[in-house]
Amino acid sequence: MSFLTPVLVAVVCILIVWIYKSADRRLQRKKEGTPTPPWVDEDLKDTTDPQQAEEDADEWPEVEESVELIPYHHTRYPEEEMATRSREFYELLRQRRSVRSISEEQVPMEVIENIIKAAAGTAPSGAHTEPWTFVVVKDPVVKHKIREIIEEEEEINYMKRMGRRWVTDVKKLRTNWIKEYLDTAPVLILIFKQVHGFAENGRRKVHYYNEISVSIACGILLSALQNAGLVTVTTTPLNCGPRLRVLLDRPTNEKLLVLLPVGYPGKEALVPNLSRKALDQIMVTV
Amino acid sequence: MSFLTPVLVAVVCILIVWIYKSADRRLQRKKEGTPTPPWVDEDLKDTTDPQQAEEDADEWPEVEESVELIPYHHTRYPEEEMATRSREFYELLRQRRSVRSISEEQVPMEVIENIIKAAAGTAPSGAHTEPWTFVVVKDPVVKHKIREIIEEEEEINYMKRMGRRWVTDVKKLRTNWIKEYLDTAPVLILIFKQVHGFAENGRRKVHYYNEISVSIACGILLSALQNAGLVTVTTTPLNCGPRLRVLLDRPTNEKLLVLLPVGYPGKEALVPNLSRKALDQIMVTV
Repeated sequence: MSFLTPVLVAVVCILIVWIYKSADRRLQRKKEGTPTPPWVDEDLKDTTDPQQAEEDADEWPEVEESVELIPYHHTRYPEEEMATRSREFYELLRQRRSVRSISEEQVPMEVIENIIKAAAGTAPSGAHTEPWTFVVVKDPVVKHKIREIIEEEEEINYMKRMGRRWVTDVKKLRTNWIKEYLDTAPVLILIFKQVHGFAENGRRKVHYYNEISVSIACGILLSALQNAGLVTVTTTPLNCGPRLRVLLDRPTNEKLLVLLPVGYPGKEALVPNLSRKALDQIMVTV
Repeated sequence: MSFLTPVLVAVVCILIVWIYKSADRRLQRKKEGTPTPPWVDEDLKDTTDPQQAEEDADEWPEVEESVELIPYHHTRYPEEEMATRSREFYELLRQRRSVRSISEEQVPMEVIENIIKAAAGTAPSGAHTEPWTFVVVKDPVVKHKIREIIEEEEEINYMKRMGRRWVTDVKKLRTNWIKEYLDTAPVLILIFKQVHGFAENGRRKVHYYNEISVSIACGILLSALQNAGLVTVTTTPLNCGPRLRVLLDRPTNEKLLVLLPVGYPGKEALVPNLSRKALDQIMVTV
């Protein structure tokens, strides 16, 4: 038997090498991709998260049940009026600025309600899921708790988490982690995206494109605020989502997308003297 | 020597098992996570793609250079006027519907330009990067090529790629992969998000929150279209991004976010008779 030992050792060596190689191949395959569902937009793959995969779908279907079709009623303006309306709307919106100094003065709740109805009540959404919750915080105690959470996380962000690049960017911005407007603004609007919903049988219901939908609603909200003469600053509190969600008693399928402090500007509000891109830098005609 | 053979075999067996196990552990580690940078919003992790990680940052800084601060000029309306303005804006927007039948009639380009200036020219964006390009397609030949690309991919999507759930959802929607509006609409607006930009030294410049920013601009665009009396339908052509990007000669850092066919409604345009959520389903007051 002993003459077999070297052969055995050789065979075993080959076996070991083979096992290693095949394990490496498995690893490679895993690395190359969590198998994405075949219907994920290939161009978006690099920017697509696993959840997004579930959401990708072409046209935004408007309804989930068989609903009847009705004639669409259209308000048409003469061409000259269209030009005037579109110019005036642009003139209105170009006055909008992100304002970080917000007065303590109260704002009429009827106006806030109309603004939220305009945004969340009329925005389009994937499969007409309306995947949003707008939490309006007026209670000073809750506002202050929100401020505490955000400033605590902010300080950690600034001190530890941020890359050098980010800190450099921010230093130039003269902002820091003190967010006084969270106390002074009479209203904070926290916009949550519902990453999924629930069907009648309790199972998860896909919310196609929920982030895009909720951001579009947010764009309409910014227009509505500007139209009413109120100011805000678009913020996305980093790392605060879970704590704010718990504080406001929102379910786990809701994730904070943006927080908007809303009110009148402070008496001596300042804004950066920035310029915006010209039309030929943002629009291409074919 | 021969008495050693069984021992050798035993040792080798143990070795093989150990190698397999350790390879499995490596696999496990790989599966458990591409290590996310430490400053990624923890609540968003499940919905955050690797690129998003780069973009996550708290408040949207408005500027990247040290710019001077100037007083903010505010237009304030009396409370009653605020209420009227906000109500009228809501009344205007609630008439908005996604319209899939679009007439061939031309629209004034001045109006389209004002609308794009209102959206892309005034929307807020992370670090004031203005990470968008709005491509306005009027050329009938290019429009038709866009239609061909989208219908080709659509057919594949419907036939092969979609999960059963999606096909069921869509069947109810009476839509299919024939997109006549891509030929008939006088204008197609394709909104591209710039997933990164370039610094002066040619290096990549982070575009914080580019998808949210561009979607917000899209929300403002929808408001502006409605205000001018034009109609559209919000579409996100699945799997067509790369081909449309090449067709329109856009650089690789730009990814298609949405496509909006714009015009007047067709003569007998129909829309689903759908209902929208009531205020108490979308708004919570604290």
